[in-house]
Amino acid sequence: MTRRIPLPVLVLAAALSAAPVAADSLRDHALTLFSPLPEHIDSLRGQPVTPAQVALGQMLFFDPRLSDTGQFACATCHNPATGGDNNRQSAIGHVWQSGPQNAPTIFNATLNRARFWQGWAEDLRENDDPVLRTAAERTGTPDRVVAVLGSMPAYVAAFTRAFPGQSDPVSFDSFVEALEAFESTLLTPAPFDAWLQGDDTALTPQARDGLALFIDSGCATCHQGVNLGGDAYYPFRVVRTPGTEDQAESLLCFSVAEADGAEYLYRAGTLRNIALTAPYFSEGSVWSLGLAVQLMARSQLGEDLREDQTEAILAFLDSLTGTPPRLTVPILPAEQALTPPPLPPLLEE
Amino acid sequence: MTRRIPLPVLVLAAALSAAPVAADSLRDHALTLFSPLPEHIDSLRGQPVTPAQVALGQMLFFDPRLSDTGQFACATCHNPATGGDNNRQSAIGHVWQSGPQNAPTIFNATLNRARFWQGWAEDLRENDDPVLRTAAERTGTPDRVVAVLGSMPAYVAAFTRAFPGQSDPVSFDSFVEALEAFESTLLTPAPFDAWLQGDDTALTPQARDGLALFIDSGCATCHQGVNLGGDAYYPFRVVRTPGTEDQAESLLCFSVAEADGAEYLYRAGTLRNIALTAPYFSEGSVWSLGLAVQLMARSQLGEDLREDQTEAILAFLDSLTGTPPRLTVPILPAEQALTPPPLPPLLEE
Repeated sequence: MTRRIPLPVLVLAAALSAAPVAADSLRDHALTLFSPLPEHIDSLRGQPVTPAQVALGQMLFFDPRLSDTGQFACATCHNPATGGDNNRQSAIGHVWQSGPQNAPTIFNATLNRARFWQGWAEDLRENDDPVLRTAAERTGTPDRVVAVLGSMPAYVAAFTRAFPGQSDPVSFDSFVEALEAFESTLLTPAPFDAWLQGDDTALTPQARDGLALFIDSGCATCHQGVNLGGDAYYPFRVVRTPGTEDQAESLLCFSVAEADGAEYLYRAGTLRNIALTAPYFSEGSVWSLGLAVQLMARSQLGEDLREDQTEAILAFLDSLTGTPPRLTVPILPAEQALTPPPLPPLLEE
Repeated sequence: MTRRIPLPVLVLAAALSAAPVAADSLRDHALTLFSPLPEHIDSLRGQPVTPAQVALGQMLFFDPRLSDTGQFACATCHNPATGGDNNRQSAIGHVWQSGPQNAPTIFNATLNRARFWQGWAEDLRENDDPVLRTAAERTGTPDRVVAVLGSMPAYVAAFTRAFPGQSDPVSFDSFVEALEAFESTLLTPAPFDAWLQGDDTALTPQARDGLALFIDSGCATCHQGVNLGGDAYYPFRVVRTPGTEDQAESLLCFSVAEADGAEYLYRAGTLRNIALTAPYFSEGSVWSLGLAVQLMARSQLGEDLREDQTEAILAFLDSLTGTPPRLTVPILPAEQALTPPPLPPLLEE
């Protein structure tokens, strides 16, 4: 990459100079920035999502035996009971390891294009997404995952139904595809979607004021699209850096930034269900959504929000809290004689 | 306690000398030792179990925010997706601590009287059971649990519905009672129950042979009652000690044993869903159910089972695999500004 100033900076500069949006055209303007959640996602990368894949993916999502120590399922950190995340500052993994980053919600994640906080250049350029695979590989060794799944006849049958006509239905690729299929069903339609689609009563007057302010202030420059964020990486500390320089240095040097020649690039996270997914920011450092809004306004837009402005934006953000999927706890196949047992809890054992 | 030889030893000696059971009276004999699972449990300690308590208990059971680090729900170790246990040799807790003992299944646990492997004398003598309270206290500090629950209006409302007329509905006592109410619904009726109730087709001929052998050999002396175990503590190494003396010393010295003056007393675990709940024994040392059956026959009964005998007993044990409850993943209340955040992952932080 040779350009030194990536495209999002130019977009952001344009937004900061935009004129306020008139109230009566608020929906029209909003529809140029946002779009309602689809009712269903019927295909992924051009392939249809089948009920058999979704059913298998749901089993896999809740099965802790697919992690090396048998301790973590996808649902452990991306918990559908609590907004699709884990309400922790950062996730805990094998041997109680804890990274610096906050686990994002799984709800509507299929519609994100930028997924990991740090991101990879490919995320922005290619349609085939390596993120779910990487997340799975972090907790389960692919060969072991395939051995565990292949040892249980009920899983082999479920893979055969989900991926018919394959000589070897139980593969790590199919495992990832089934998880993607299930996750594509985790959509949470919200009052904001109803309002975008014409239901005037779906937003309170305060929430509409908040939306107008959200657009006028420039928040929507990064937090736009169907997920109000989650689709690209942007320069951080546009106006000034939140936190200390040391924190920034330790947290913000990521590969997308390097690839694009910018000093700091950050994922703009989705704001859907944001009221359910504290703590906030990539390092999960802030528990109050009001404070998070104020910090972003100050550091990204150079604005100190008044209390009533913060409240209005919070009312708008509340309208992004969607109806979560009602899921049944799957009944998983029993281990068999050949099922590899979980690895011992301590690496040195 | 002054008696040196506890009652179960005498019972066991009687069983070992019992005559074989004739095939045509097998059900009659079985009904003297076992009883079918109740369809419902309507009351606990004389108090009715209400739907509001069950609904609240289900939320609590799946809520990891009630553990100090926000990492563990009841369902983490007692997972309804995998037979009600965690398929691990021993459970992992805060800071990746792992004790020596296997987590037992939560299914039908309300009907157990002896719950912890080591047990307390009170378990055998008092109706009010401190075990669930202790399990909860192991992962969540009571004051913190109450503070977390009390911070979320939706939880306060659910407690008020479940425990009406109390001045302070959100208490650790009510928390434990609601969990007990939910757990009382986790019953898994099995083919063996249908057979006990007169359905001749519910057991295969091999399973009936296995049942007869199970009774004749003396297995049913300890593994009897509605849960085929789970109701009392018994002397271990009746004939000889499995494993090394060192292992035995480190694992088997428990308070019930001390209270009763016996050298080693052990809980006879329930055999319901035993095919789903490997690994086996209190220390989770054996992954093969066939091997576990053979080891028990050898060490407790002094019998070396033939392969066909082991297979018959396994066929009988398979008839104890019940229909698991179909549970919905609860949608939990969102944290509020006053909700205490999870404790940091490391104790020294």
